[in-house]
Amino acid sequence: MASRHRVVIVGGGFGGLYAAQALAKADVQVTLIDHRNFHLFQPLLYQVATGGLSPANIAAPLRAVLKRQRNTRVLLGEVINFDLERRLVILKDGTEPYDSLIVAAGSRHHYFGHPEWEQFAPGLKSIEDATIIRRRILLAFELAERCTDPEECRALMTFVIVGGGPTGVELAGAIGEVAHATLRGNFRSIDPAQARIILLEGLDRILSTYPPKLSAKAVQALQRLGVTVRTNTRVTDVQAGQVTIRCGDQTETIRAHTVLWAAGVEASPLAKALAQASGAELDRAGRIIVQPDLTLPGHPEVFVLGDMANYPYQGGKPLPGLAPVAMQQGRYAADLIQRRLRGAPSAPFHYHDRGSMATIGRAAAVADLGWITFSGLIAWLVWLFIHIIYLIEFENRILVLFQWAWNYFTRNRTARLITGADANEKRT
Amino acid sequence: MASRHRVVIVGGGFGGLYAAQALAKADVQVTLIDHRNFHLFQPLLYQVATGGLSPANIAAPLRAVLKRQRNTRVLLGEVINFDLERRLVILKDGTEPYDSLIVAAGSRHHYFGHPEWEQFAPGLKSIEDATIIRRRILLAFELAERCTDPEECRALMTFVIVGGGPTGVELAGAIGEVAHATLRGNFRSIDPAQARIILLEGLDRILSTYPPKLSAKAVQALQRLGVTVRTNTRVTDVQAGQVTIRCGDQTETIRAHTVLWAAGVEASPLAKALAQASGAELDRAGRIIVQPDLTLPGHPEVFVLGDMANYPYQGGKPLPGLAPVAMQQGRYAADLIQRRLRGAPSAPFHYHDRGSMATIGRAAAVADLGWITFSGLIAWLVWLFIHIIYLIEFENRILVLFQWAWNYFTRNRTARLITGADANEKRT
Repeated sequence: MASRHRVVIVGGGFGGLYAAQALAKADVQVTLIDHRNFHLFQPLLYQVATGGLSPANIAAPLRAVLKRQRNTRVLLGEVINFDLERRLVILKDGTEPYDSLIVAAGSRHHYFGHPEWEQFAPGLKSIEDATIIRRRILLAFELAERCTDPEECRALMTFVIVGGGPTGVELAGAIGEVAHATLRGNFRSIDPAQARIILLEGLDRILSTYPPKLSAKAVQALQRLGVTVRTNTRVTDVQAGQVTIRCGDQTETIRAHTVLWAAGVEASPLAKALAQASGAELDRAGRIIVQPDLTLPGHPEVFVLGDMANYPYQGGKPLPGLAPVAMQQGRYAADLIQRRLRGAPSAPFHYHDRGSMATIGRAAAVADLGWITFSGLIAWLVWLFIHIIYLIEFENRILVLFQWAWNYFTRNRTARLITGADANEKRT
Repeated sequence: MASRHRVVIVGGGFGGLYAAQALAKADVQVTLIDHRNFHLFQPLLYQVATGGLSPANIAAPLRAVLKRQRNTRVLLGEVINFDLERRLVILKDGTEPYDSLIVAAGSRHHYFGHPEWEQFAPGLKSIEDATIIRRRILLAFELAERCTDPEECRALMTFVIVGGGPTGVELAGAIGEVAHATLRGNFRSIDPAQARIILLEGLDRILSTYPPKLSAKAVQALQRLGVTVRTNTRVTDVQAGQVTIRCGDQTETIRAHTVLWAAGVEASPLAKALAQASGAELDRAGRIIVQPDLTLPGHPEVFVLGDMANYPYQGGKPLPGLAPVAMQQGRYAADLIQRRLRGAPSAPFHYHDRGSMATIGRAAAVADLGWITFSGLIAWLVWLFIHIIYLIEFENRILVLFQWAWNYFTRNRTARLITGADANEKRT
């Protein structure tokens, strides 16, 4: 047992978990370390933030997922650094030796040099983020119901989402649905459908990585849900209850109780730790520029995957921070480790781009499969099918499918709880 | 509208919600005030605390439940006092006038004069309590997996539940199931089935309000789940990681990472506020001793219900703090208000005791229907059926039923997430 090749995987996201699973039958000893006890299906996190699903529906306990994989153990622990010379992962409370190391610790929000904005404009990366955002959205309507000052009421009923990528679009669409369908008839003093939902994008169109035709379709679908899309608009300041924007030469301050951040991410600080230890280069988003085989320059035994890695692809453009990229990279690293052990030849990583999709509420989505683009109900059904398939744990698939069907017909969302230590916070 | 009789209900638990629903067709204006935006089905809270269900499965947004009841509005607000002279409910941020008032604000944990024990031995009353307890239980196993000191490991694997009433019994049974079934095969260094689970009861038997035969059945069922039941045992001190007990003349200190409190409750502090304003008497648990029609002495327009009320019943013994009592009292108060408005005669409140039940894990429960007692699989199925029926919202019924069926066959519990601000706390 002790003489077997030790593979340590840092991070139980798509990259780390798929790598671990791909090593199930390998003659290696796998240790998966995460600071959370569950794998999180991040693509559906916005549905938790808008009360459509419960956190547990999109989270799978890592131990449960890997319990039958006898060559693998799971450690709940916080990795803070690496000793590449001695081949040790340094935890907050211990060390873990490795022969091969896979680092896939993901990314976190990035406020473009304004970390102070975070308290006023939370981002969406963790279960806790999702319940905070859920609380803010629901509390805004509750406070508006009891509000007597028209200007204050208007600020409470204004929701600003910063960033027109998939997360921002999905979040804005879901808030539109909550306001127009879910909360209909729930209040006596306000009409939730009067909510202003504003999606801000710095570039000239939302979903800028998609073909322009799909961006236009997404704008139409968002408008039907009462979302105002403002492109070429940059945020210059965020404070409690207000956001200042610039569009061309115009500057404007929008009073909004709820401001949500979906504008930027940067790699986990572990990327910086690895770069310092190895001399590897970081890109502007803090990602490590990896070798063609996803390894750290000078350290073929160390793989860096997913949102932490800048893998120069088509024309030097890095691969996007999407689940399929991380999954394929995880499988590739697992395969390469096994090839090396048996002395087999290896090829550089190649990404099979099966396309990308974003959903914009009920029966509306956009899909770009490279060879074909489509939108509307069909895209939504494909989106739904793919997300159910990739959801970990069969029980969650059924729970999510049932709740989606229920939501489709009743427009109700039962997971709209205001919870947390400051569940009664009055202002953010 | 303004001239209609105004009924203000404080609290959206079983008493308040059932009162509001019973007023659906009445020619009155109903205002339901709660500091949470949801009704919580407390009898199943222990299943959230042990990872079997998600919080939203046992919580129903009050607005969604009451949205079609056009004579009713819901206010999210914190009631801090009452002005009985001017007939005003005093909120933290405003006042609300009433003609009839129903106060059903429930109860909270009581540490017998030792509030400092709460931080070491959390009780189970709210969603937040449940996620805190879930975190402590799961984290104990995680820390034990990485523990190298045998004594420390033993403390991590020791779970003490204080109080052998229904909540303590259900909690102990569920932890037994988690240790013996759910977590089987999940760890590599520890065997979760080696966990010590100790249920402490001050009296000479657990479930002391049930017939002695059922207490004995419950002990047997708990023992099968690996739970040690210690009766005639009182807690004399609780500190971080340890609990001191006395049994007869013997004093003993048990080292335990997880100590849970299910020993006592006291009425909401609003009972004291009402007593001070009206001169009503409080019992030792802080409950108001109400009139035969559930009103405050001298204030026939003020009803006090559920866990806040001491209603002297059979031989002066107060009714227990159970959901059916609160439900029936809520309906009674709603009916009495309507009778008064139409000048109809009224009778004192009468409790229809349909019995009580407690469950002790998979396929095991005890039931006392007064005219018959039974236990085992049949009792469990009846318990299951009744809880599904009384669960608010049809969607939740299906979600809970599915998760129970899934859990029954697979023994898995997917809602076992370690979440919260201090998700990585190392010691409590």
